[in-house]
Amino acid sequence: MFEAAELGQKITKAQYEAELPKLRAALLKAHFALKDTKVPVIVIVSGTDGAGKGEVVHRFNEWLDPRGVDTHAFWQTSDEERERPRYWRFWRALPARGRVGILFGSWYTEPIIRRVYGEIKNSKLDTEMDRIASFEKMLADDGAVFVKLWFHLSKKAQRRQLKDLESNPKTHWRVLPTDWKHFKLFDKFTEVSERAIRRTDTGQAPWHLVEAADRRYRELTAGKILLQAIEDRLQQLARNQPTASTSPSVPAIKSAPAPRPRVHASTTILDHVDLTQHLSDKEYAAQMEKYQSRLSRLTWAAWEKKVASVALFEGWDAAGKGSAIRRVTAAVDPRLYRIIPIAAPTDEERARQYLWRFWRHLPRAGMTTIFDRSWYGRVLVERVEGFAREDEWQRAFLEINEFEEQLAESGIVVSKFWLHIGKDEQLRRFKEREEITFKRYKITDEDWRNRKQWDAYKAAINDMVAHTSTVSAPWTVVAGNDKKFARVQILKTFCKHLEAAL
Amino acid sequence: MFEAAELGQKITKAQYEAELPKLRAALLKAHFALKDTKVPVIVIVSGTDGAGKGEVVHRFNEWLDPRGVDTHAFWQTSDEERERPRYWRFWRALPARGRVGILFGSWYTEPIIRRVYGEIKNSKLDTEMDRIASFEKMLADDGAVFVKLWFHLSKKAQRRQLKDLESNPKTHWRVLPTDWKHFKLFDKFTEVSERAIRRTDTGQAPWHLVEAADRRYRELTAGKILLQAIEDRLQQLARNQPTASTSPSVPAIKSAPAPRPRVHASTTILDHVDLTQHLSDKEYAAQMEKYQSRLSRLTWAAWEKKVASVALFEGWDAAGKGSAIRRVTAAVDPRLYRIIPIAAPTDEERARQYLWRFWRHLPRAGMTTIFDRSWYGRVLVERVEGFAREDEWQRAFLEINEFEEQLAESGIVVSKFWLHIGKDEQLRRFKEREEITFKRYKITDEDWRNRKQWDAYKAAINDMVAHTSTVSAPWTVVAGNDKKFARVQILKTFCKHLEAAL
Repeated sequence: MFEAAELGQKITKAQYEAELPKLRAALLKAHFALKDTKVPVIVIVSGTDGAGKGEVVHRFNEWLDPRGVDTHAFWQTSDEERERPRYWRFWRALPARGRVGILFGSWYTEPIIRRVYGEIKNSKLDTEMDRIASFEKMLADDGAVFVKLWFHLSKKAQRRQLKDLESNPKTHWRVLPTDWKHFKLFDKFTEVSERAIRRTDTGQAPWHLVEAADRRYRELTAGKILLQAIEDRLQQLARNQPTASTSPSVPAIKSAPAPRPRVHASTTILDHVDLTQHLSDKEYAAQMEKYQSRLSRLTWAAWEKKVASVALFEGWDAAGKGSAIRRVTAAVDPRLYRIIPIAAPTDEERARQYLWRFWRHLPRAGMTTIFDRSWYGRVLVERVEGFAREDEWQRAFLEINEFEEQLAESGIVVSKFWLHIGKDEQLRRFKEREEITFKRYKITDEDWRNRKQWDAYKAAINDMVAHTSTVSAPWTVVAGNDKKFARVQILKTFCKHLEAAL
Repeated sequence: MFEAAELGQKITKAQYEAELPKLRAALLKAHFALKDTKVPVIVIVSGTDGAGKGEVVHRFNEWLDPRGVDTHAFWQTSDEERERPRYWRFWRALPARGRVGILFGSWYTEPIIRRVYGEIKNSKLDTEMDRIASFEKMLADDGAVFVKLWFHLSKKAQRRQLKDLESNPKTHWRVLPTDWKHFKLFDKFTEVSERAIRRTDTGQAPWHLVEAADRRYRELTAGKILLQAIEDRLQQLARNQPTASTSPSVPAIKSAPAPRPRVHASTTILDHVDLTQHLSDKEYAAQMEKYQSRLSRLTWAAWEKKVASVALFEGWDAAGKGSAIRRVTAAVDPRLYRIIPIAAPTDEERARQYLWRFWRHLPRAGMTTIFDRSWYGRVLVERVEGFAREDEWQRAFLEINEFEEQLAESGIVVSKFWLHIGKDEQLRRFKEREEITFKRYKITDEDWRNRKQWDAYKAAINDMVAHTSTVSAPWTVVAGNDKKFARVQILKTFCKHLEAAL
């Protein structure tokens, strides 16, 4: 594969100077047009050591309007990063819509290096690359343009480059101790890189191999690739084509389960919930004491073992989410949990993929995050109210499964509660709320409007539970007509999940 | 002082149950009214160990609308926090306007504990308390309501409380090992706390001592204090009074320098800049090479010694800020710096005090942050265009001095550049920009509008430099008519500052 990037391509100084002003003017023009779009551009700069990657990053910063560029170098990890799922640091770095994000190092670096050093096997490398392919697909589906650049040097050129840098007093600081170490592994590095590139070279996020021996050639070529990618998207937007059509050649991705068929059923999962279940006051008091004190012990034990957990609450309006959450938090030391209520997104959140706002709130090791409403809004309210297009919410099932898979994989205990009540019970509670002073704030016109959509929500909930209840992140549908029963069921389930993990 | 909180106050169950519903209804009502205001409420929960602070936090979360509350416990510090100035973690936790932030532990905790353990002396404690007083004053001036609660237990009550908690199997986990350790230092703790409270008990941010032995009394009292504070502000807003009038009794704060007199002068600092200074191409090439390679070495050395730096650039339109910044960054490894361009704030940023958006971008140890425009917008564009009221931008000089003092204190090297050019030279550059294709994006109608305000800006710049040039964060006014001279002056100055710190 890399033979194509060992052809000895060069650009003369005269040619470079003739082409550069045109390229820069065109890049700036495209970059400005990009600002008015909802398109983030993700530029990945990777390749052989000594191939001038850092200089290319400098050039991009020089050629583009600096106000529209974010450069992130992935290098050392902080403990805040280490204590969260691995991709948290990449989510933090994703560019907002209309901006160019330059990633110096990326999600590719660690798996490739670890494979080169023999810390992981090919099978693990493949799994990682499949994860990357679906991660990139998700971002591309959301509108991102990918520019993945791989700067290649032949073995001979790499040795010469490192020696040149080293012998020049002005540049010797550019050679890091790890560079020579990597050089000794050149053949292995080439083999692993090739495997990684092949597996992640998709229609929506294609790789570009750039021959890196000649500075002028590699910089001009990189600039042109970036320009082309932005211009292509701008033209597409002008023609008003949906972005999905850019991906005719997405290869089958092994790790991603095939999309499940849509669920068509007249009776739904909700119809099977026994809403007559209830507890007496005495049973309730005894059970609450038992499970609250158990939860208290378990959350401290989780803290000691550095096991984090996420509990999310969804449910019908007036199903008792708020009071159920309070019964949970009453048992947990305030130092150990945070509640994240999900309402309208901020503009910083709106400017990114819809899962970004949840990533930023993931718990550190040993902690619990409670989401009062969650990412499932995408397949509930956004679906029913038409805020998300059908292809968007359909896609969300898979995206959410993968998100939760990553949580589970990093050791986070995931509990998901749907608080179910009957339609009559909801009516009774709405009326009650209107009558009690300090409950009146809880009932709005929106609640009444949502109630009219009961059947549409019922179908959406059914699809949601069918598509996103997984072994590592199962749904618990809570029988909520009796609040006491519901609260105990939630506490008990949360305890069970924590116990299983500890 | 604490005698007033050792009176044996109690509330009977009947009384509690009679008062609670009224209190809760009133609290909710006030909390809802708060949402429509621009007022953040900062609740500090502190006091003796075993005084039930955690339970009060629970109660507040229960009584208020959880969607409008943020609870933060300050406990362990992350390395991301340790590597930044001490207050960074508190800035991260400040509530947005219209919200209630409950701080369990706060900026008071560490200084008090360190004094109790004898790690610092009284003089250092006082300095810390003065810093807190000015920090709180700044937030109060910005509109924040403070509710600072100190829960006090007598020595006898504390011992009884700890023993009770410990002997009850349901609550023994609430007693931390440090609690008994602190108990042995009870008298010292009381003495230090009293000193700290006296020094930070101000009109805008008063302390409330709450007798904590009786659960019902302390919770009801805390709730009433919170309610009163919010209601007072709401009434004030309804009467349309400026918030400053709430602080008749702010004590003189030692550490804060007395506000300097406004500068009235017909010739300004800018008139003394020799704009004829210039460099030949040959000198320029030699100097650039010298200082760029020096800067490269210095930034790596700073990385090794974990010395962070902040460089900010302000200047007339077309003075060459962008190109000067590129000459600096060209010499620095991309892993070591980030550029933060300052444009309009996001809504997350707008919802907080104006310095918050700069705190979030402070560099980690060993890194450099370059601000392209900065917090000085407050005393430049916001002053000249009238976006900030006179009392706001006047106050900003002191606020900025204190902000930069904290940067310097934490070891951050601060460099501030004003790029100065003559009025004729600006006109020449504006015209040039209109003529060159890839420079055309740089010139907007706003630039021409700003130019008409030249004299107003000149007065503002003069005030700014006079009020905010300090030993630890001096201004460098750069002679910018000759771009070559300006770039070298900037590189040289930046190197000089780094060298002094290493």
